[in-house]
Amino acid sequence: MNLTVYLAGQIHDDWRNHLKEKAKAKNLPIEFVGPQEDHDLSDAIGEKVLGEQPGNVYRDDAASAINNFRTEVLLQKADVVIALFGEKYKQWNTAMDASTAITLKKPTIIVRPESLIHPLKELSNKANVTVETIDQALEVMEYIYK
Amino acid sequence: MNLTVYLAGQIHDDWRNHLKEKAKAKNLPIEFVGPQEDHDLSDAIGEKVLGEQPGNVYRDDAASAINNFRTEVLLQKADVVIALFGEKYKQWNTAMDASTAITLKKPTIIVRPESLIHPLKELSNKANVTVETIDQALEVMEYIYK
Amino acid sequence: MNLTVYLAGQIHDDWRNHLKEKAKAKNLPIEFVGPQEDHDLSDAIGEKVLGEQPGNVYRDDAASAINNFRTEVLLQKADVVIALFGEKYKQWNTAMDASTAITLKKPTIIVRPESLIHPLKELSNKANVTVETIDQALEVMEYIYK
Amino acid sequence: MNLTVYLAGQIHDDWRNHLKEKAKAKNLPIEFVGPQEDHDLSDAIGEKVLGEQPGNVYRDDAASAINNFRTEVLLQKADVVIALFGEKYKQWNTAMDASTAITLKKPTIIVRPESLIHPLKELSNKANVTVETIDQALEVMEYIYK
Amino acid sequence: MNLTVYLAGQIHDDWRNHLKEKAKAKNLPIEFVGPQEDHDLSDAIGEKVLGEQPGNVYRDDAASAINNFRTEVLLQKADVVIALFGEKYKQWNTAMDASTAITLKKPTIIVRPESLIHPLKELSNKANVTVETIDQALEVMEYIYK
Amino acid sequence: MNLTVYLAGQIHDDWRNHLKEKAKAKNLPIEFVGPQEDHDLSDAIGEKVLGEQPGNVYRDDAASAINNFRTEVLLQKADVVIALFGEKYKQWNTAMDASTAITLKKPTIIVRPESLIHPLKELSNKANVTVETIDQALEVMEYIYK
Amino acid sequence: MNLTVYLAGQIHDDWRNHLKEKAKAKNLPIEFVGPQEDHDLSDAIGEKVLGEQPGNVYRDDAASAINNFRTEVLLQKADVVIALFGEKYKQWNTAMDASTAITLKKPTIIVRPESLIHPLKELSNKANVTVETIDQALEVMEYIYK
Amino acid sequence: MNLTVYLAGQIHDDWRNHLKEKAKAKNLPIEFVGPQEDHDLSDAIGEKVLGEQPGNVYRDDAASAINNFRTEVLLQKADVVIALFGEKYKQWNTAMDASTAITLKKPTIIVRPESLIHPLKELSNKANVTVETIDQALEVMEYIYK
Repeated sequence: MNLTVYLAGQIHDDWRNHLKEKAKAKNLPIEFVGPQEDHDLSDAIGEKVLGEQPGNVYRDDAASAINNFRTEVLLQKADVVIALFGEKYKQWNTAMDASTAITLKKPTIIVRPESLIHPLKELSNKANVTVETIDQALEVMEYIYK
Repeated sequence: MNLTVYLAGQIHDDWRNHLKEKAKAKNLPIEFVGPQEDHDLSDAIGEKVLGEQPGNVYRDDAASAINNFRTEVLLQKADVVIALFGEKYKQWNTAMDASTAITLKKPTIIVRPESLIHPLKELSNKANVTVETIDQALEVMEYIYK
Repeated sequence: MNLTVYLAGQIHDDWRNHLKEKAKAKNLPIEFVGPQEDHDLSDAIGEKVLGEQPGNVYRDDAASAINNFRTEVLLQKADVVIALFGEKYKQWNTAMDASTAITLKKPTIIVRPESLIHPLKELSNKANVTVETIDQALEVMEYIYK
Repeated sequence: MNLTVYLAGQIHDDWRNHLKEKAKAKNLPIEFVGPQEDHDLSDAIGEKVLGEQPGNVYRDDAASAINNFRTEVLLQKADVVIALFGEKYKQWNTAMDASTAITLKKPTIIVRPESLIHPLKELSNKANVTVETIDQALEVMEYIYK
Repeated sequence: MNLTVYLAGQIHDDWRNHLKEKAKAKNLPIEFVGPQEDHDLSDAIGEKVLGEQPGNVYRDDAASAINNFRTEVLLQKADVVIALFGEKYKQWNTAMDASTAITLKKPTIIVRPESLIHPLKELSNKANVTVETIDQALEVMEYIYK
Repeated sequence: MNLTVYLAGQIHDDWRNHLKEKAKAKNLPIEFVGPQEDHDLSDAIGEKVLGEQPGNVYRDDAASAINNFRTEVLLQKADVVIALFGEKYKQWNTAMDASTAITLKKPTIIVRPESLIHPLKELSNKANVTVETIDQALEVMEYIYK
Repeated sequence: MNLTVYLAGQIHDDWRNHLKEKAKAKNLPIEFVGPQEDHDLSDAIGEKVLGEQPGNVYRDDAASAINNFRTEVLLQKADVVIALFGEKYKQWNTAMDASTAITLKKPTIIVRPESLIHPLKELSNKANVTVETIDQALEVMEYIYK
Repeated sequence: MNLTVYLAGQIHDDWRNHLKEKAKAKNLPIEFVGPQEDHDLSDAIGEKVLGEQPGNVYRDDAASAINNFRTEVLLQKADVVIALFGEKYKQWNTAMDASTAITLKKPTIIVRPESLIHPLKELSNKANVTVETIDQALEVMEYIYK
């Protein structure tokens, strides 16, 4: 059974590649999708498509419309969502994507370090599973095939 | 036309009272509901109902289950959601409540200071309306009745 | 049985009042809601709430967000939608509101003059009932109570 | 990841072919579907199937039923909708298809010239992304694969 | 607890009044709604609103649009549907209304004489409850309040 | 684009084969599904699986449960429903299947002879397209691919 | 804010009265509904309405149809479901009602003694809140009003 | 037509293999999925992924979260659910899975021995089909392909 997994979360390190390689090593038939990982492109895509905007607020709004469009297309294709929270960054996008997925009844795994237990307790309580590392998230995915 | 408005956001100052009083002064037929504003009670409610838990993680999980239950009951009754973001606190709960509301097609207003434009741009883009002050949010509500 | 009817369509003459008075004369227990009928306010509401915007495009976008919010709140309360098309104006808003209502399974009546039969044939075919005058639309509403 | 895109909008020039060829040149794995582009066939299909109708109103209604049926089948298969508005024609069908798609949570791109910003501001505000040219719409689609 | 019950079925005798009076005698807090019971009006309503149509097919289509609109408004208000089948008439409307109600998860009671068990067996199997007389249907409604 | 079409309607002649052969001759990529066409098996399936039942009512109920199960599985797989009504038989199953499909937003074609226009007018008005012959229904399907 | 609470669970003792009285003592504006508590009536209702059935299986099936109908009407009216499990009885009905409520996104509280933690762990994990006594369940309800 | 069938029920004997082999012998194009059948792994999976928990309650909760996640992923892929009840064990999971499936409109077959007719009568009444042996359940599946 092939599954598509959307990887929500920050795009500042290569945690997605780490996950993909491990999944490949285990021969799991999973296709991973996720947000635009080229951070500069992600911030610039609005002006890249629509031309220069009148200031940062409008630049951000143009980019976020296209990023949200991209996420919506891929999230609808996903069977599962894995959402990673880390100690840096506000990551409201991650909370937004996880919460959207949960509301749409997409089975959702939250990954967060121990230090974030308190601020994430409500979202964690709504998710299907909460773990502390992406390796644990992959173990949960692997369990589906056992 | 009576409307019920859920006020998502932090519970560390009395912004909700400010909003309620202004709405009353304008004679708007709005009933406001929202999360538990007694912060200590909100954190303690799990152990208060279920008894002592084996450590903070479990204390938090017990509390969040009951807080989520409370939110879900009230959110389903709401016609509109107003979600306030401020510079302090991580406020993932607020992002979670706003995103749940948007996904459930509840008309949603986000209130956030100028300093949060960039980190909130995707959520702001998905909401129906984004403003900078709670007075502006109330103006939007008042506009429904004009 | 009280019903709420959303009156979609242009805001340049007083057709809504005409309808409301006739409904009142017939003692129909109907509450009518609809878009902001003060045209200047409708166009200005974005800047009125959010302050001056950098040009007309952004002024329009700010206004439309608040007008869409208003419509969404009222449309969700409506049991029936009556959408009036006339020969003037592009009226894409009207088509948008009617189509949203039909997709949400809100029973919908379209009112359009004979001259618009051809360009509105697909929308008309999707609506529950299509008539040529607002008096006919009211007759259809009255029929519910007979 | 293969995607199906429904191309809503007028059928009086070959903008769909232009888009399809560009997508092919970029090797995007997209299947495009859309309304019947043979305009005469589109208007005649009702009588072609059902035989002569008693006048134009009934001819139009018969055709629109079959065209709506066709659109509904293809729209349900689509992952994305791109809706083109131009300066000619009333294009209420386009507004209807875009609005249906948005209400069904299909990610939707609106393409409209600068001259239509004002009359389309509400629909544009509800769509996920609004651009001015079909090349920009394709750039947005391409961004999903980057 | 007040309930609204839609009474689907033929409109050729006064079975609805019989039911309403019995419910009143038992003091059940039920509001009954249903199709237009004035048969001539029901058949004529299309031409009454829209003017003369080009033949019976179009007369019927105009009437059925308005009758369907009426049913849709009232069915959406109903908490329960009771659908009566008798030995006369084809009663495809009744089957349509019952099936619509069941698909929308409205609790539905079918009333049919013993002679119709075989032709109605699939619909009966999908309904929540099937009885043989309208008095039995009322007993089932009364049971809710016991 | 492959489509699955559910063929609702009576099972007493070979109209489904006629349709399938014509579709094949036109090379339409359509998979047809439908109810159990072996009438005796269809009536006997309940007792065949569950053993003898205490009389015809229970025999019918056991069969209809399994036939409804079969229909539900296949209807959920279908992109389109074609429902044939003829002059013989009560065909409440056909009305039930068509009405279920329409309520689930499955695009639906009704086929009925001229003699049934009046009793089927409401269902016909709710369907997407109504025609008089199965060849016309196939023409409508073929039009999707033109 | 008035709330309606459906009390799922066994009907062999008066736990519902206990809960209702306590809620009354606390002045909570809650209307409680639930299954038929007269056990004999609950088992006999099928034959009472439909007449004698051919054996216990059919007697049970007739009763359960009417009991399910009753539950469905009341569950749809409920804002919250409280489901009590005890050590006696199989209580598959309770599991069924709780699971239906959770799937329909009704906020749900499960009450179960410590001895049932293991067999109920999956259902408990899906519910919003799990407690051990009905007094605790009432505390959770009371918390909504604090 | 390929179908996916989720096999809910106890995991203490090899009834699933029995069913799979019979389906294979009949060449039915069915993919079977189901819960984790390694009972020890199923109970231990929480601690295996998340590390040691503070006692059995938390061990069970951790395991059930992951088992529920697994079930939700597979249930959403399923076209049909077969739920087996036996005389041993409480099997609230089975009731939960069957009830979830029925509420989600997944066609559902319940298998239960004669001795469980009374306690399962309400769930049985809500399911599409109820049989006594897994061979009968397979006969029902086979009937789809006849």
